[in-house]
Amino acid sequence: MNDHLVIMAGGVGSRFWPMSTSILPKQFADVLGCGKTLIQLTYDRFRGVVPKENVWVVTSAQYASLVRQQLPEVQRQNILLEPCRRNTAPCIAYVSWRIKSQDPKANIVVSPSDHVVLDVPEFQRVIKSGLKFVSETDSIVTLGMKPTRPETGYGYIQADLSCATARNKEIYRVDSFHEKPDAETAERFIQRSYYFWNAGIFLWNINTIVNAFRIYQPEISRIFEDLLPIYGTSQEQSLINERFPLCDNISVDYAILEKADEIYVFPADFGWSDLGTWGSLLLNTERDIHGNACIGNNIITAETTNCIIHATQERKVIVQGLDGYIVAEKDNSLLICRLGEEQRIRQLTEQ
Amino acid sequence: MNDHLVIMAGGVGSRFWPMSTSILPKQFADVLGCGKTLIQLTYDRFRGVVPKENVWVVTSAQYASLVRQQLPEVQRQNILLEPCRRNTAPCIAYVSWRIKSQDPKANIVVSPSDHVVLDVPEFQRVIKSGLKFVSETDSIVTLGMKPTRPETGYGYIQADLSCATARNKEIYRVDSFHEKPDAETAERFIQRSYYFWNAGIFLWNINTIVNAFRIYQPEISRIFEDLLPIYGTSQEQSLINERFPLCDNISVDYAILEKADEIYVFPADFGWSDLGTWGSLLLNTERDIHGNACIGNNIITAETTNCIIHATQERKVIVQGLDGYIVAEKDNSLLICRLGEEQRIRQLTEQ
Repeated sequence: MNDHLVIMAGGVGSRFWPMSTSILPKQFADVLGCGKTLIQLTYDRFRGVVPKENVWVVTSAQYASLVRQQLPEVQRQNILLEPCRRNTAPCIAYVSWRIKSQDPKANIVVSPSDHVVLDVPEFQRVIKSGLKFVSETDSIVTLGMKPTRPETGYGYIQADLSCATARNKEIYRVDSFHEKPDAETAERFIQRSYYFWNAGIFLWNINTIVNAFRIYQPEISRIFEDLLPIYGTSQEQSLINERFPLCDNISVDYAILEKADEIYVFPADFGWSDLGTWGSLLLNTERDIHGNACIGNNIITAETTNCIIHATQERKVIVQGLDGYIVAEKDNSLLICRLGEEQRIRQLTEQ
Repeated sequence: MNDHLVIMAGGVGSRFWPMSTSILPKQFADVLGCGKTLIQLTYDRFRGVVPKENVWVVTSAQYASLVRQQLPEVQRQNILLEPCRRNTAPCIAYVSWRIKSQDPKANIVVSPSDHVVLDVPEFQRVIKSGLKFVSETDSIVTLGMKPTRPETGYGYIQADLSCATARNKEIYRVDSFHEKPDAETAERFIQRSYYFWNAGIFLWNINTIVNAFRIYQPEISRIFEDLLPIYGTSQEQSLINERFPLCDNISVDYAILEKADEIYVFPADFGWSDLGTWGSLLLNTERDIHGNACIGNNIITAETTNCIIHATQERKVIVQGLDGYIVAEKDNSLLICRLGEEQRIRQLTEQ
């Protein structure tokens, strides 16, 4: 089996304060109150799709023990540690050369660690179909989510729906990528059937991605190419600690996807959310008849509607008379914020 | 010196949840965030008025160690422990006979432990003047607070302002007592100069109160009269534990004040609040320019007005976009409630 999964788990999720902090980012938290953390849910979602010895996690060095603890099935040597934050391109380059050193025929799916998928069987069908496609073609494939609202927080993919690929009738060529749009543009996008949200889930085979890096990011490529002899040896971490910081801070979208020609999109619909904000969590959580999502065991509400109340640490919480608020409590921190004003959370926590 | 102070400290303050709980009622909490608990502020307010060996505290047995800890200057034998709750009449009867056994010439001021007084010099002047008056007359004196709003949560005293007493030109005969009025009646009361709030602060000499109990509450009197030989001995607590529960559950207002003839009121104005609810705390705490009272060291507010935010346990609290709410956090409990809906707190905590 040459199918590999890369879970990117280095983010901080500061808009989810106080549930997500740099000590315990949201991928390591039981955000949904279901008894599993987001990274555990991510791992579980790929069971039966990718053999467990082919699961890779790239994270910050400071979260190594969290990953080992929460994903004990992932082999220690498959947990790659970034010495510093350099966005997704260096992260993907590192893991790509690392996998190449071990499996030169690898097909790879790259996934964030903190997203939610509601329809797992459909998700698995799409991933399997996509992995088969990239095993047969030198294509870079992104998953495109059918937009359900004029979201200004996501990037959009414009697909050429006029002609599906020969090998997979569900996969189309990408016309262009669009950065996070303003409200008016987002409204226009969702009127058209050929705009999709960029979910940040990518599929490719190892030669495609390595060659794309060589062409579009020669400096990053050289750093990880040079280390080919030492991957999997005791020298790996110390050399990565030395060289990784030299990489540009750049996203894979900007570094590769927006530059390469042969980019494809696989439109899919499996109840996806990036859980980027408290509001998106509200959309993805079961609500009571008053529209409240109460995550925690000891929450009482009265005259309260359309609120998300997150208090999972056995706290007793009483909320009376609120409409449309986030109430989140964790450790020694409490947040009360109007839904829709979540962009203020980062500012306020920095005070 | 025959002047004595009785501090009643057996209440629970359930409308102040979660700051006030049966484990730590509000009189033992630093409600104002000033570094002192309400009972400590009460004790301090009488410094220089009553000698410290004449300070008595009546409380529930379960709070004995809290009283000893917070008021180390009060003599151990002056802390009287009620084995169960029986409202204020049995409490006052017990401490009265107990004081009588030791000082048959005592003059007594009885005070709740959980009220706030802003103008302490004026308070002390009133108490000293009142104690002198009751040392010279067989009168029952209540303090009457000038009403500042049509409060429906207090009892009202109707004074006969036509004629002050001969011995003290500030003290008047009481015409009648009125239970907590409805809103319309309260509005009418505050239009008239002769209605006052009943602050629950009483002054009398020992013979007056003991005789009043003998006349109006003979059963309660008999219980404490019978124990005269054992007050101050090692038998006291066990006999109190046996007999005290036999008392009727009745307030001193209902048991004595509304029945006796010679009742007087001393109208006074020293910035008093019973701190019965979160709303009353808001009225008695310094507010920022947005009308917020933030009690705690790590509270950030944004687009927030007219709120009381109480989080004294070194919590980080961020509140955005609230107007007119109580936010209170303590131990493992959090309350968010619209100001004015505080009567719901008791109901909701009982769920």
